[in-house]
Amino acid sequence: MSWRRLSGMDAAFLHAETGDAPLHVMGALVLESCGRGPREDFRRIRAQIERRLPGLPILRRKLVQVPLGLARPVWVDDPTFDLDAHLRRAALPAPGGNAELFEAIARMAEVPLHRDRPLWEFWVVEGLEGGRFALVAKIHHAAVDGIGGAQLMCALLDVDRNAHPSPTAESEPEPEAAPSSATLLADAALSLGAQPLRSAWQVLRTTGMGARLALASLSKRKSPLPSAPRTQLNGRVTSRRAVALGSVPLADVKRVKNAYAATVNHVVLAACAGALRRYLGRHGAIPRQPLVAAVPMALSERPADGLGNSLSALLVRLPVHLADPIERLRAAREASRDAMRTHELIGNQINEWADLLSPTLVAGAVAVYTRLGLAEHMPPVVNLVMSNVPGPGTPLYCAGARVTALHPIGPIYDGCALNLTVMSYDGSLGIGAIGCPDAVPGVEEIPLAFEASVDELLQIVAAASPSIAAAS
Amino acid sequence: MSWRRLSGMDAAFLHAETGDAPLHVMGALVLESCGRGPREDFRRIRAQIERRLPGLPILRRKLVQVPLGLARPVWVDDPTFDLDAHLRRAALPAPGGNAELFEAIARMAEVPLHRDRPLWEFWVVEGLEGGRFALVAKIHHAAVDGIGGAQLMCALLDVDRNAHPSPTAESEPEPEAAPSSATLLADAALSLGAQPLRSAWQVLRTTGMGARLALASLSKRKSPLPSAPRTQLNGRVTSRRAVALGSVPLADVKRVKNAYAATVNHVVLAACAGALRRYLGRHGAIPRQPLVAAVPMALSERPADGLGNSLSALLVRLPVHLADPIERLRAAREASRDAMRTHELIGNQINEWADLLSPTLVAGAVAVYTRLGLAEHMPPVVNLVMSNVPGPGTPLYCAGARVTALHPIGPIYDGCALNLTVMSYDGSLGIGAIGCPDAVPGVEEIPLAFEASVDELLQIVAAASPSIAAAS
Repeated sequence: MSWRRLSGMDAAFLHAETGDAPLHVMGALVLESCGRGPREDFRRIRAQIERRLPGLPILRRKLVQVPLGLARPVWVDDPTFDLDAHLRRAALPAPGGNAELFEAIARMAEVPLHRDRPLWEFWVVEGLEGGRFALVAKIHHAAVDGIGGAQLMCALLDVDRNAHPSPTAESEPEPEAAPSSATLLADAALSLGAQPLRSAWQVLRTTGMGARLALASLSKRKSPLPSAPRTQLNGRVTSRRAVALGSVPLADVKRVKNAYAATVNHVVLAACAGALRRYLGRHGAIPRQPLVAAVPMALSERPADGLGNSLSALLVRLPVHLADPIERLRAAREASRDAMRTHELIGNQINEWADLLSPTLVAGAVAVYTRLGLAEHMPPVVNLVMSNVPGPGTPLYCAGARVTALHPIGPIYDGCALNLTVMSYDGSLGIGAIGCPDAVPGVEEIPLAFEASVDELLQIVAAASPSIAAAS
Repeated sequence: MSWRRLSGMDAAFLHAETGDAPLHVMGALVLESCGRGPREDFRRIRAQIERRLPGLPILRRKLVQVPLGLARPVWVDDPTFDLDAHLRRAALPAPGGNAELFEAIARMAEVPLHRDRPLWEFWVVEGLEGGRFALVAKIHHAAVDGIGGAQLMCALLDVDRNAHPSPTAESEPEPEAAPSSATLLADAALSLGAQPLRSAWQVLRTTGMGARLALASLSKRKSPLPSAPRTQLNGRVTSRRAVALGSVPLADVKRVKNAYAATVNHVVLAACAGALRRYLGRHGAIPRQPLVAAVPMALSERPADGLGNSLSALLVRLPVHLADPIERLRAAREASRDAMRTHELIGNQINEWADLLSPTLVAGAVAVYTRLGLAEHMPPVVNLVMSNVPGPGTPLYCAGARVTALHPIGPIYDGCALNLTVMSYDGSLGIGAIGCPDAVPGVEEIPLAFEASVDELLQIVAAASPSIAAAS
């Protein structure tokens, strides 16, 4: 098929985007110098990406709106695709340290992707201290989720420093013809015809879910859906963004998890809770109840072309109200299990509802929410988005240069002004924090506090070892 | 008054803007090194701009939409104004030559200004060859026209290398309170009430103008409103921009103008015609009739606060069809006088119509024009926008660093994919060309061709001097 309709969730990311609130996912890679100079680095990286393009349809497809907006847009091959409109050079101001890198990424994060070409940009950023350079990637959330973005990065990079271009990928396929307006209208009519039936089915299913939730709630005497406290993370979001990155050794995280019969994910949740407790203590007040984090969860089935979102979401209680690091870890472990149980009750409602929403409804709801400043007047549903994306376990290379660090950066929303995303890479866990500095000042403190939280847990494990493992 | 409504033309620049077609005016200044290093340069420039802010309300005002979109938006003091959201550092990739500078400016030109804060950005760009740096300014066309932008730059800079901060400007005024929704609604109701009367008057005036034009046309046996040929300058505009800058000595231009009883403006028109003839010959075909350039013309009255557009527009025939440089100069001189005579007949219709257009109508018309690709199907009204802005005649300084060159950069529109703007500064004429590379490839050739055109005229004057002056 030469074109493909966006899913309801893909389209929601498109229609909820405004000029002042972009919805893309980003990644920042730091690469070591090969001593070839920035122009030669760029030339080789460009050549590598050009060779990989034929195998990555996601990078060559752009959006086409259906006439009259009758149905969700479709992806089609861009017949005028030009790599130079997507791959750009940039440089950091002196001295090229973390502050300058974070600033440059924040400026890129503030700008929505142009809709008239494939929805991605890569920047080769030179001028990092020590002759290093960075690769910053930006892809629309309608095109990929976090896992899709990570898979894409892996497909563009090499597992071997001296990788040779694969000869099969050399020939560029002819772009497939875009569908005519008539074809798109006919298809839209078919999908609209099926809508009432699907709506009725969805209402029935959701009613059933309500009954199951009510039963579960009665039996456990607490609501399975957590309620979020009001915090400074949930104010109005302006068009400004601040970005900060950090990382911890994966071995440290594993040592903590082994000592407390936990998972890497539990330790990440606990360290995020510790970091946010520290941050909220400095900037306002620590709430007396857990924060609620929306944690995207990958669906087991993913489309072969890697396009679009295959996500559900867990609502996880983040125990920022607990002062003791080990209590936070135990609470995070329990909260994670609670969230999974609730998700089993609810099922994948989020995608099924999203499929029924019309583009106009999503865009209208976002416009009303933002214009009326509802973020300041309504209680938050979640306090922040927190994501943990599995990444490659071995080093990657780009045009012979080793990737020394890899950090994911997610999107934020009006009323939900902070996103923390964690990704494993080659023996470390990279964290990317992005926030609106008008709502969440001092975003740069959060990755440092995350690193300190992991270290704090590690110190406790080291001091008590081996007695703790048995006591837990 | 603590707020001020946009004029019809100001608002048209706002409502005609889309995420893929920004409508700002830009300026690029090149400054010599003071050997202080980029961080110290930035610190001093920031301090200078901060000191000047109190005297420049235009930089502290943001837009407020009237509830329900009943009338045009208003400017109000931004109570949360933060200079650091507007003044940014950037750097050029190696080797920091013209190609890298033009690329960096093009990237800035592609991004619309954020609507939730005052509509301007300045970038201090380091890494130019020879230790020089650039200052790139971007201001929304709803806030200033070319002359307003030039006046603003002068107000921010010094005429003296060792200028000391003026003590009167040190104290920052309290921002004035923004009007309430009720106030804005009441004012909108008043302005809507007056609308039908004003519409009727405008129709009467325009009918009168039509009669005068028809009479003038009969008496001269040619239409006073020129018709534009189809050219490659008038295709669909994508979100991509290319920028190129150049300059010529003002003394050269004056020598040519004196030899042919012309004005600087006539020589600029002739040199642009020569440059475009050369460009069109290389990229397609030279039309057999003149191009039509829309040339903004300053109104004599300008508001004291420098906010908004005080512009009318001339339609000038640009003699690209003539092979001889001197014939082009004579034709440009005549075309300029024709355009002035027609403008006297028509009067300042453009502003009076703009005042009557509703925001929804402008945005709707632009959306329809762009979506249906009308640029490809309708004959162009004008082939390009060409502007000649008077600038300062003596050198300017910023935080002690001398401005060695100053180039203006205007906006482009769907169906009108090239803008050439010229500005005088300290004994030279700077030219800025901006175009959509998908419609107008090779924009970088145009300033070079402009320089060559002026040189060609100068050579002819030098060879024939002093006999030409008498013959003309």
